[in-house]
Amino acid sequence: MISVVILGAGNVATHLFKAFNKAGNVVVKQWYNRSLKPIVTYKNEVEVIDDLSTLKNADVYIIAVSDDAIAELSEQLPFENKLVVHTSGGVGVYDIDKKLKRGVFYPLQTFSKDAEMDFKNVPICIETIDKKDYHILKALAISIGSPTKKVNSDQRSVLHLAAVFVNNFTNQLYRIGHEITESEGAEFDLLKPLIFETAKKAQYISPYMAQTGPAKRNDKKTIKKHLKILKNEQHKAIYKLLTKSIQFTHGTFKGQ
Amino acid sequence: MISVVILGAGNVATHLFKAFNKAGNVVVKQWYNRSLKPIVTYKNEVEVIDDLSTLKNADVYIIAVSDDAIAELSEQLPFENKLVVHTSGGVGVYDIDKKLKRGVFYPLQTFSKDAEMDFKNVPICIETIDKKDYHILKALAISIGSPTKKVNSDQRSVLHLAAVFVNNFTNQLYRIGHEITESEGAEFDLLKPLIFETAKKAQYISPYMAQTGPAKRNDKKTIKKHLKILKNEQHKAIYKLLTKSIQFTHGTFKGQ
Repeated sequence: MISVVILGAGNVATHLFKAFNKAGNVVVKQWYNRSLKPIVTYKNEVEVIDDLSTLKNADVYIIAVSDDAIAELSEQLPFENKLVVHTSGGVGVYDIDKKLKRGVFYPLQTFSKDAEMDFKNVPICIETIDKKDYHILKALAISIGSPTKKVNSDQRSVLHLAAVFVNNFTNQLYRIGHEITESEGAEFDLLKPLIFETAKKAQYISPYMAQTGPAKRNDKKTIKKHLKILKNEQHKAIYKLLTKSIQFTHGTFKGQ
Repeated sequence: MISVVILGAGNVATHLFKAFNKAGNVVVKQWYNRSLKPIVTYKNEVEVIDDLSTLKNADVYIIAVSDDAIAELSEQLPFENKLVVHTSGGVGVYDIDKKLKRGVFYPLQTFSKDAEMDFKNVPICIETIDKKDYHILKALAISIGSPTKKVNSDQRSVLHLAAVFVNNFTNQLYRIGHEITESEGAEFDLLKPLIFETAKKAQYISPYMAQTGPAKRNDKKTIKKHLKILKNEQHKAIYKLLTKSIQFTHGTFKGQ
């Protein structure tokens, strides 16, 4: 049995709590947040606290708060030499106070407030300073069904950066698709199956092999037509830049 | 029973043939291609031809060839006043020779050569010059299980353009994610569940509501860190431009 304490009340904290709470070999001893309000609804399932001095002994303390708050919260912990991990892709493992045994337990996924998340679809990237701490974190990830991967800080940074491209930036392309279609009274809904299929394809074909379209085949006529339709200068700039990027990747770029 | 003839041998033609061939109330009378080679393997299921003068009578002729070849092929058809549609998002309905009854049967989806496609996930955008021709095209789409939508030329152009954003450009973001991760020996595979979840989210939450990340919250520290990691100037430019685009959308842009 692995005992954990969760610190924080955001999406990651909440999804982790639910997953650990269901897992057979994990016990969530306490759930801390500086305000009880967002976690008090769980008080029948776990001891909820807002006072760090009441923290109990546990195998792993999981800090799932905003990036900027991690260092300070770790400093405030009223103990030393216990295993404390954060869940951030973008924060160094050394940001955790050095009085502690330090690690990272980074779930590489986007969490929604309301939607359930099956942790078999949440790879956990694990980093520890002391090798000995790795195995308990791996066991913890496995207990909720997650695939795990040992990554170093550089790899984690790069995964976090790549996640911005495939999640935030991709989502912004969906948004632009939404704006463009609605501006002509066409329905964004018609694009949803295509959005889904594009992501599905990426599961088994490399993005290089999957590429199609006017940019890849340097279809100047269509590209020109598209740029003429686009009214928003920023959308035009994005169209041009990503077209160029595709053409660089596929060796079809012929200059401006 | 609706009789159709398919002209062309690419992905769209092949997927349409398979779908029609399975449908109860559609008969594919002939499959034409200027070379028999790519379609000859289907000769036990359908009459394959490479000579336009042998075309038989059918309710709908579906031209599924490359954009540039549509006009010419329609001119060469040895009949008049029959319903001929193309399947392109980017070509006008008037590109079909005016001796014919003209329409568009545009499947808004990305087709792979090998993967099966369930046409319930393929919205068919229908356009006809003569209103009377609309219903048979709608019936044809319904017979293969597709949702249908009547669109005019402007709406179709804009859907095709939006498809470039959510399919080609999104796929290029996946590609960049691939390049970035592999350059540090991190695994692109770790991003696949995130790619899938991002697309899944777009099925039920608007991209506006779904957005998260450093750009949206104007987290300058993370943005700076990411730009430092990126070595490729084009990737840097894409990062900056899409970050700015997100910030414009969400009102968090504060100038360069």
